[in-house]
Amino acid sequence: MKINTRITKLLNIKYPVIEGGMAWVGTPKLAAAVSNAGALGTIGSGNMEPEILREKIREIKELTDKPFAVNIIMLNPHAEELLEVVIEERVPIVIFGAGNPAPFVKELKAKNIKVLAVVSSDSLAIRLERVGVDAIIGEGMECGGHIGDVTTLILIQRLTDVLNVPVIAAGGIATGRAIAAMFALGAEGVQLGTAFIATHECEAHDNYKKKVLKAGIRDTVITGGKLGHPARVIKTPFSKKMLEMESNSPEEAEEMLVGSLKKAFLHGDVSQGSFMAGQSAGLIREIKSVEQLLKDLMKETHDSIEKLIKRFELQEKIAEA
Amino acid sequence: MKINTRITKLLNIKYPVIEGGMAWVGTPKLAAAVSNAGALGTIGSGNMEPEILREKIREIKELTDKPFAVNIIMLNPHAEELLEVVIEERVPIVIFGAGNPAPFVKELKAKNIKVLAVVSSDSLAIRLERVGVDAIIGEGMECGGHIGDVTTLILIQRLTDVLNVPVIAAGGIATGRAIAAMFALGAEGVQLGTAFIATHECEAHDNYKKKVLKAGIRDTVITGGKLGHPARVIKTPFSKKMLEMESNSPEEAEEMLVGSLKKAFLHGDVSQGSFMAGQSAGLIREIKSVEQLLKDLMKETHDSIEKLIKRFELQEKIAEA
Repeated sequence: MKINTRITKLLNIKYPVIEGGMAWVGTPKLAAAVSNAGALGTIGSGNMEPEILREKIREIKELTDKPFAVNIIMLNPHAEELLEVVIEERVPIVIFGAGNPAPFVKELKAKNIKVLAVVSSDSLAIRLERVGVDAIIGEGMECGGHIGDVTTLILIQRLTDVLNVPVIAAGGIATGRAIAAMFALGAEGVQLGTAFIATHECEAHDNYKKKVLKAGIRDTVITGGKLGHPARVIKTPFSKKMLEMESNSPEEAEEMLVGSLKKAFLHGDVSQGSFMAGQSAGLIREIKSVEQLLKDLMKETHDSIEKLIKRFELQEKIAEA
Repeated sequence: MKINTRITKLLNIKYPVIEGGMAWVGTPKLAAAVSNAGALGTIGSGNMEPEILREKIREIKELTDKPFAVNIIMLNPHAEELLEVVIEERVPIVIFGAGNPAPFVKELKAKNIKVLAVVSSDSLAIRLERVGVDAIIGEGMECGGHIGDVTTLILIQRLTDVLNVPVIAAGGIATGRAIAAMFALGAEGVQLGTAFIATHECEAHDNYKKKVLKAGIRDTVITGGKLGHPARVIKTPFSKKMLEMESNSPEEAEEMLVGSLKKAFLHGDVSQGSFMAGQSAGLIREIKSVEQLLKDLMKETHDSIEKLIKRFELQEKIAEA
């Protein structure tokens, strides 16, 4: 099934689905698989240096001729240089996260780059619409990685009320019925992160994928809250130690974080690695190919909407009779 | 519009909407208004003593001949005596909250009382289905008052997957598009709390209602987390003091809580009162009558589903062409 929205049109994609920007996890291989399957793949630049990003962009161009995005987080001290690379390499879409990208929007738009931004609050969304972003990704606090404090259900109700640009829902979405629900709220696309970890094309260590499969809906925890940068991760010996350390010795806790994503991604190290994932991990039970995942999600979206229509039409008939 | 589900049938109500159990706020007057308008009104028994509850039940029976519920929280030391009152007074529906009511389900069912339970986890829901509850209310952590750690979007996706009894969605619902979204997820009813505070029939102090109207989506905070009983409240001088006290002097913090709901409800006291409310307060801008609120919610639900149908049918036609 296809659902055309302003988002599929804007981004020139078949399915209104975006791969969330994930540091380490969002490799060219995974992003290309997502784009080739009809959604929007995203290179997660995390704390990358500019020349590494250039390599990754060249790599994905070898793997797909479909649109793809680069996610840039404003926390990265190289953010400005990364943007230069993105412009030089003619990346079609930039997705900003973790911070306020307002100063950069105009320049990118002038270069014909589509600009999306991930927000966790309505106030930032309103400001970014004013400076010209093409769409807003509202991300609820059930998502993996860096989080705000408002849930997806609340944030999307609010954003579809106050914005004119299309809204993309993120955080907690791992089933087709959730995608249907987000459309009912007025969203015109969805962004998924954790669901893409559980794919064959994801290059994360097997332990990472296993952690996602085994997790229940209550098996994530928020670390870093006391350090001022809360992030949702799967409960592990590392996350437990982090929570203790945050209270007792914030400086050591900050040190523990250095390299912790890499250790989870490359080595599946549960004692020193930080396994970022959303609460939706509790809904994922199977590793699939990216193509199969997207097909299954779209089929369930279709079925959920049809079921709703049937139930609703039946009610209308009863009411008329 | 009417949407008939297993919930409207089970509870014998016109709209698949339940008033959430709210201590102090859930008075016979408000609950009767909700029931008279076609939804299910609920007396929130909170920490009530048994003979007070008996009075309240007799009061609501004077005000409505429609079905109503009594909410009983397992934290109340009088819970067992309250149940005796409920049986003696032939209350048609009991809704359990805040704890595991498994031991009492059979007895109530034997007396022909419908039994619903509010849960914040899938594990408790599965256990309660086994002991025979008629429906499960899944309440996400965006809700007001006592909260769990999973969001509504996650919890409802999970519950509709693992349960056979009907699922009612609670937490963060204050618009018709959110109700439509919950139906898309497979829920068969919704429970609203905060939305009913902003009604003429609600007997809370004006300051309480004003706090709800003025709140943005980020204007609630979780107090009591360090005391082991987290509750979502509107940010006030009291909530700020509570958070400091929890860290510095848990015993004093516990003392501060005594009577704090009453002080918010009766006196609108922002320095000593605890204004429980969900993140949905940020979506509420107007005081309405209960009847108007329900009509508006149902109309928006209808419109959201119709919009989704139109968009979807258009896509199907394009696909066929």
